[in-house]
Amino acid sequence: MPAILLLNGPNLNLLGTREPATYGAATLADVEARCRATAERLGHTLEALQSNHEGALLDAIHAAGRRFKAGELLGVVMNPGAYTHTSIALHDAIAGVAPLPVMEVHISNVHARESFRHHSYVSPVAAGIVVGFGVAGYELAIEGLVRKAAAR
Amino acid sequence: MPAILLLNGPNLNLLGTREPATYGAATLADVEARCRATAERLGHTLEALQSNHEGALLDAIHAAGRRFKAGELLGVVMNPGAYTHTSIALHDAIAGVAPLPVMEVHISNVHARESFRHHSYVSPVAAGIVVGFGVAGYELAIEGLVRKAAAR
Amino acid sequence: MPAILLLNGPNLNLLGTREPATYGAATLADVEARCRATAERLGHTLEALQSNHEGALLDAIHAAGRRFKAGELLGVVMNPGAYTHTSIALHDAIAGVAPLPVMEVHISNVHARESFRHHSYVSPVAAGIVVGFGVAGYELAIEGLVRKAAAR
Amino acid sequence: MPAILLLNGPNLNLLGTREPATYGAATLADVEARCRATAERLGHTLEALQSNHEGALLDAIHAAGRRFKAGELLGVVMNPGAYTHTSIALHDAIAGVAPLPVMEVHISNVHARESFRHHSYVSPVAAGIVVGFGVAGYELAIEGLVRKAAAR
Amino acid sequence: MPAILLLNGPNLNLLGTREPATYGAATLADVEARCRATAERLGHTLEALQSNHEGALLDAIHAAGRRFKAGELLGVVMNPGAYTHTSIALHDAIAGVAPLPVMEVHISNVHARESFRHHSYVSPVAAGIVVGFGVAGYELAIEGLVRKAAAR
Amino acid sequence: MPAILLLNGPNLNLLGTREPATYGAATLADVEARCRATAERLGHTLEALQSNHEGALLDAIHAAGRRFKAGELLGVVMNPGAYTHTSIALHDAIAGVAPLPVMEVHISNVHARESFRHHSYVSPVAAGIVVGFGVAGYELAIEGLVRKAAAR
Amino acid sequence: MPAILLLNGPNLNLLGTREPATYGAATLADVEARCRATAERLGHTLEALQSNHEGALLDAIHAAGRRFKAGELLGVVMNPGAYTHTSIALHDAIAGVAPLPVMEVHISNVHARESFRHHSYVSPVAAGIVVGFGVAGYELAIEGLVRKAAAR
Amino acid sequence: MPAILLLNGPNLNLLGTREPATYGAATLADVEARCRATAERLGHTLEALQSNHEGALLDAIHAAGRRFKAGELLGVVMNPGAYTHTSIALHDAIAGVAPLPVMEVHISNVHARESFRHHSYVSPVAAGIVVGFGVAGYELAIEGLVRKAAAR
Amino acid sequence: MPAILLLNGPNLNLLGTREPATYGAATLADVEARCRATAERLGHTLEALQSNHEGALLDAIHAAGRRFKAGELLGVVMNPGAYTHTSIALHDAIAGVAPLPVMEVHISNVHARESFRHHSYVSPVAAGIVVGFGVAGYELAIEGLVRKAAAR
Amino acid sequence: MPAILLLNGPNLNLLGTREPATYGAATLADVEARCRATAERLGHTLEALQSNHEGALLDAIHAAGRRFKAGELLGVVMNPGAYTHTSIALHDAIAGVAPLPVMEVHISNVHARESFRHHSYVSPVAAGIVVGFGVAGYELAIEGLVRKAAAR
Amino acid sequence: MPAILLLNGPNLNLLGTREPATYGAATLADVEARCRATAERLGHTLEALQSNHEGALLDAIHAAGRRFKAGELLGVVMNPGAYTHTSIALHDAIAGVAPLPVMEVHISNVHARESFRHHSYVSPVAAGIVVGFGVAGYELAIEGLVRKAAAR
Amino acid sequence: MPAILLLNGPNLNLLGTREPATYGAATLADVEARCRATAERLGHTLEALQSNHEGALLDAIHAAGRRFKAGELLGVVMNPGAYTHTSIALHDAIAGVAPLPVMEVHISNVHARESFRHHSYVSPVAAGIVVGFGVAGYELAIEGLVRKAAAR
Repeated sequence: MPAILLLNGPNLNLLGTREPATYGAATLADVEARCRATAERLGHTLEALQSNHEGALLDAIHAAGRRFKAGELLGVVMNPGAYTHTSIALHDAIAGVAPLPVMEVHISNVHARESFRHHSYVSPVAAGIVVGFGVAGYELAIEGLVRKAAAR
Repeated sequence: MPAILLLNGPNLNLLGTREPATYGAATLADVEARCRATAERLGHTLEALQSNHEGALLDAIHAAGRRFKAGELLGVVMNPGAYTHTSIALHDAIAGVAPLPVMEVHISNVHARESFRHHSYVSPVAAGIVVGFGVAGYELAIEGLVRKAAAR
Repeated sequence: MPAILLLNGPNLNLLGTREPATYGAATLADVEARCRATAERLGHTLEALQSNHEGALLDAIHAAGRRFKAGELLGVVMNPGAYTHTSIALHDAIAGVAPLPVMEVHISNVHARESFRHHSYVSPVAAGIVVGFGVAGYELAIEGLVRKAAAR
Repeated sequence: MPAILLLNGPNLNLLGTREPATYGAATLADVEARCRATAERLGHTLEALQSNHEGALLDAIHAAGRRFKAGELLGVVMNPGAYTHTSIALHDAIAGVAPLPVMEVHISNVHARESFRHHSYVSPVAAGIVVGFGVAGYELAIEGLVRKAAAR
Repeated sequence: MPAILLLNGPNLNLLGTREPATYGAATLADVEARCRATAERLGHTLEALQSNHEGALLDAIHAAGRRFKAGELLGVVMNPGAYTHTSIALHDAIAGVAPLPVMEVHISNVHARESFRHHSYVSPVAAGIVVGFGVAGYELAIEGLVRKAAAR
Repeated sequence: MPAILLLNGPNLNLLGTREPATYGAATLADVEARCRATAERLGHTLEALQSNHEGALLDAIHAAGRRFKAGELLGVVMNPGAYTHTSIALHDAIAGVAPLPVMEVHISNVHARESFRHHSYVSPVAAGIVVGFGVAGYELAIEGLVRKAAAR
Repeated sequence: MPAILLLNGPNLNLLGTREPATYGAATLADVEARCRATAERLGHTLEALQSNHEGALLDAIHAAGRRFKAGELLGVVMNPGAYTHTSIALHDAIAGVAPLPVMEVHISNVHARESFRHHSYVSPVAAGIVVGFGVAGYELAIEGLVRKAAAR
Repeated sequence: MPAILLLNGPNLNLLGTREPATYGAATLADVEARCRATAERLGHTLEALQSNHEGALLDAIHAAGRRFKAGELLGVVMNPGAYTHTSIALHDAIAGVAPLPVMEVHISNVHARESFRHHSYVSPVAAGIVVGFGVAGYELAIEGLVRKAAAR
Repeated sequence: MPAILLLNGPNLNLLGTREPATYGAATLADVEARCRATAERLGHTLEALQSNHEGALLDAIHAAGRRFKAGELLGVVMNPGAYTHTSIALHDAIAGVAPLPVMEVHISNVHARESFRHHSYVSPVAAGIVVGFGVAGYELAIEGLVRKAAAR
Repeated sequence: MPAILLLNGPNLNLLGTREPATYGAATLADVEARCRATAERLGHTLEALQSNHEGALLDAIHAAGRRFKAGELLGVVMNPGAYTHTSIALHDAIAGVAPLPVMEVHISNVHARESFRHHSYVSPVAAGIVVGFGVAGYELAIEGLVRKAAAR
Repeated sequence: MPAILLLNGPNLNLLGTREPATYGAATLADVEARCRATAERLGHTLEALQSNHEGALLDAIHAAGRRFKAGELLGVVMNPGAYTHTSIALHDAIAGVAPLPVMEVHISNVHARESFRHHSYVSPVAAGIVVGFGVAGYELAIEGLVRKAAAR
Repeated sequence: MPAILLLNGPNLNLLGTREPATYGAATLADVEARCRATAERLGHTLEALQSNHEGALLDAIHAAGRRFKAGELLGVVMNPGAYTHTSIALHDAIAGVAPLPVMEVHISNVHARESFRHHSYVSPVAAGIVVGFGVAGYELAIEGLVRKAAAR
């Protein structure tokens, strides 16, 4: 069965030590492990990538688009971190590899924080958005992705 | 075990006939049935209410707050419809019955539509937000609510 | 022949005593009588409803949508009062019962008054808009509605 | 009996070929013929002028103001076209010949189109506004003008 | 002697349990009792109404307008809650029953909170505004209302 | 018992002759006399200062802060006049002498006037705000100040 | 000696009958006569042009630029009317014939009127600006122009 | 005959050395001498005051208001300097001593400089405005003031 | 072969003398000669029109639309001058004669100048845009137009 | 003869498969081949680089600046993709290697798309801008670059 | 050797007691002593002035400008307090005495506080800006001033 | 003793040749040498990194956070270049490694330049900010960092 790609953007490698009151105590490795368990429970493998480089994230989305066409990938669960709010390039990359489904996840409730976190360039091209559930949001997004694929 | 309240706001009684390209073909009864199945699978009963009256929604949230304190309610999954964008009263009602968890759901991807749908007065006080998964989003929110309760 | 629904929103029950320099001396009963005469001259009956409750207006539009589909209603002539400027729910209700034609009427010239009266959430989904003709505007809207139906 | 002046602004000479999905198939000659019939049915003659020149429209309003004072003109039905949104000079011309009644007409529903069409410099000084009824809106405006004159 | 109407808007039924750091520990019943005592000390009876329904508040203001004309009511002390910031209909209702004096009260200092609480649609038509004195503000408003009536 | 300081800002020395339709016929001396009577009725002395100089008002607030700490002053009732809308320095002065209570008073209903009068730099740090009661507002503020002190 | 050009823009031909509370009772002929007298008292002839056509005003400024270079014109006194606020073309025309001095005149106090009259595209390229003196402002501008020329 | 008051605001004591490319080489003493000559040529004495203190300018306007009522002052010619753009208190002072005529003068063309110099709180209450004529603008304003007084 | 229409808007008749640091030393005649040479090299004739009148430009676009349909015109190369930024009528004219290709040219780099030059009403309906190449931009636009026609 | 550098930014590697209705069917290799042909026809070699990494584009511009000084490079033709709208760093890089000419190209008509595509940080420092000609725009930019170099 | 002027604006006399969590525990006397020590270590005397009066600060800058020209002053280290954000007059005073170097200091990190503290009218004319180092920032500014003078 | 990290962002490798009127003649190597000398004078070593890649700067801050915790680093002196104004990721990186002190430096006076340089995403999380001192600002920031560490 096709894999699921878990893509994490800038500063998410700091999970567990970064502002734990906001982001919780789970590390990125913890998150990836929980997501792997969820994906496998649903019959998929999980691949995970984290990068602080906007360009590397674009490259990863492009590659995912090619693998989706080849039937090797079910879709992407992505937390774009701060690039959510500033990267039109991410918007264009996701639009450019449509209909690859990309699920947008935010750990914290971005709408309860600074106003510069209220707008997302990713949301208009996302296939689903999960916000504010803590790291459990990743798992919900995986379930939503699988459910969406099943409905096709 | 405590119940889950499914609260739908204005115009959601039209589901199934209202702009189906945007909102899908499922009726409100369909949605409630799917949510009931999900809740029961997770060991909870589901109660459902839809109203076009802002005041009735406020009353329902107040009652939910009292029942949550009494241990009769696990939380609320709410699609506030158009009041999402205009009702500070909803914001205040949810804040006023904290820590009752309210999960905000939108069927369509509101961030890909008119700009007046991009801001939510409910989000800053929501315990989690699920957007753009179609009616499956209600089910993800129920799962997220149960998971959150389990983590407490 | 199908009926015409005259729908008046908040504070229009005050017509005749409310700021007469702005809204004129005719009462709501006068308006309804003039509209009934116009409708009957054009071969239709008139039904009239006024409410200060946003939810009641939404309910009325939903019911009108069902009756339009059943061929019992020609369309709606509506003065949404102050909800014109604040109610996205009204916008969604009208969009949700398309293609029911809703004619928007304002007695006063809203564009010559406070800036918060310049924007209408109803206009983008209205089938026609009549502004600033005093209470005669209701009659023009009925004529426009009948003419539009005849052109179909 | 005094005449009615039908004034059409820029690009309205293109009616019938210009974006027919928006403006319909009737030509300017068709519109003028329908308006003439309506005016004559109500006991008035119709004079019609179209110009792409803002200055020519100002000149026409000034002349109309003089003829109104002389009792030769009942009022003006005007579609200012794109100058609606940009011409403070039109606003001042109409204010400058008060109390000549000028009825503002827009064929399409300008509030459902680009945001730069949502504001009108003419509206605050118009005696009535008719929007989105297609070319039938001209006829409603003539009826409204005659009704208003009768009420004086 | 004419009565005083104490009108409380949405969520004020939660007083005492709602965000006590912001709104204090007094319940709505406490507030009404204190206001009744103050009114009676000044020689008036007090009538109290709380509603979460915008339409019910409009109805109440309309009724108050009729009773004021009949000499049965001295005026209104109103805390419009969250509708303060969103309800043009409230603005129009109060303007529509002028010169009924309506005193606007806010328990918390709204200007020290979120920016969406800084604008009031009620203030431009209020006969007096009292903000940030806690529940004592209701009593000051009653005194101000009586003083204003005495000065007439 | 500690004194109350009545502080009036720019142009309030003109009271009685300045735009009487807006500010009334009472002179500053009248206001100070009425306030003195109110303060004395409540068992306090009143000290009064008016200045057109922003710096002098800052100096007065600083001195009040010192006297409040020494138990010589109950608090301040202040009409900051036009500096309300422009003086961040006033905001900082009041914040700098916290917890001295400063009651903000405006004679006219500033929210019904020009938009530049709608924002106050003083309000976020005021212990209470009284607007639009005419000069009676000063007396209400004194009563509110005394009540607040009694509640401590 | 070189002539002075008095240039009046749209609607100024209505002077004397146009909103006399704002623009006064003097006609355009009166204004031109007073300006001619002032110019001749200062040793210059006056030429006067009024047009409602933006293009005609541009043509006139271009011609004035040529005559200024030829030493036949001292400068321009111009009331651009409503084009003041909308015509970047006027701005560019004046910049394009620099250093021809153009004095901008407004009869009424535009800064005390609608906000759309507060900005002028002509001001940044004007050699001097006279506002709100009524028709006497034209004479002050002529004196200023002559004084400026004398200072060169 | 009544005197004319020449009032200069902050930094105008620096004239002659302050940014001479913008403000010219004339000192404040030069300006006052030229204004005195102009005033005396027109039959009036000139009194001059410059202050960097906003409060002192307010005091001066208040005093001028009293002297105007006493027939000792014809009016004020004022360059409010930077307070033009920030002082609502100046606006209120001038409005508070109406109908004392205050002529606003700016040496440089403020509309060709930074955007924060484009708005004036003084203009809406000024009896006339002269901008960008260099120091000659003061003389034009005096002439305009005398002319205005003669027209009364 | 069909002709190419070179259309120049307001103030472009000043080329060569108008702000040469911005617009260069070539006159309008020079530009037309260079464009004619380019057009002829590519096998087309060139027709040229310049006008300062917005209405004349609209008329010319309408005529071009008719000739394009008749196969007599390949397309338009247009520098709308200052009307670029203010003329919705130009936008509508071009949209109204679609699919006539209109190439928009600006000699200077408008994006490096005043902010009011950054927005173009013509661009959204232009078939191509060339900015900042000096007068060579006209030639590039002609080449682009011919290339576009060849690709059809 | 010096080379020309063709620089393509993020997502342009997707050309041919990315939203072909907007960007056309030509691949990046096709574009580079067409540009190479054009460059060689004009006597220059072409070097091409595409990167999704903002930093890599900055590095390339810096290197181009050094090679331009060394006479090895004629200039740059650049499509900055989405970084056009977000990268001040690109603006600074181009300004930092002035006078290297950088021609900005956009395949689609960015002014007819989302508003966040209307502003370019590159334009103010570009030597020329070509928009909306499809991939032919690259060729026009090369011709413009060569023409500009020839004119030096 | 020339002296250094330490200028402190409104409310800085409260240092030590004013919001110590924001401004620290050092008093103004402490700050002046530390600055004197630093200045003397660098071979300069220190003069210190604090005022709550905007006009007094302007006077002090004017005097500093004269003393700088006379070689008696090295420059100014200034904390303009709240006037930073509101005083265009301060901006003009510093520009008016150029090239006197004025170093702007803020004790707290104004960019981490309310948005009205993010803009400074002083910064564009400051010779250097030091923010957020606590009271040590004054010493850094003195060192920067001395270093700058040495570099001349 | 712990080292100091000097971090320079995009385009700062161009120092010495990049817009020398703005940034001075010192090269990056010069800056690093001066900073090293200052650091060593204060008893610390200096490490220096420059990158045009946003991701590389994030990586460097993350590494610095780890070394700070290990006691190997005193803090960071950072000039984020253009990423100052666009990178929320930088903001989050610095917040994510708190309490590592990061001193923000800008060589030029960014507040005297384009408005897009006035806002910094780094400032709210910076431990100190030094602006406009030229390259000497780096040295002041080092001194401030050492002083801050000493004060701990």
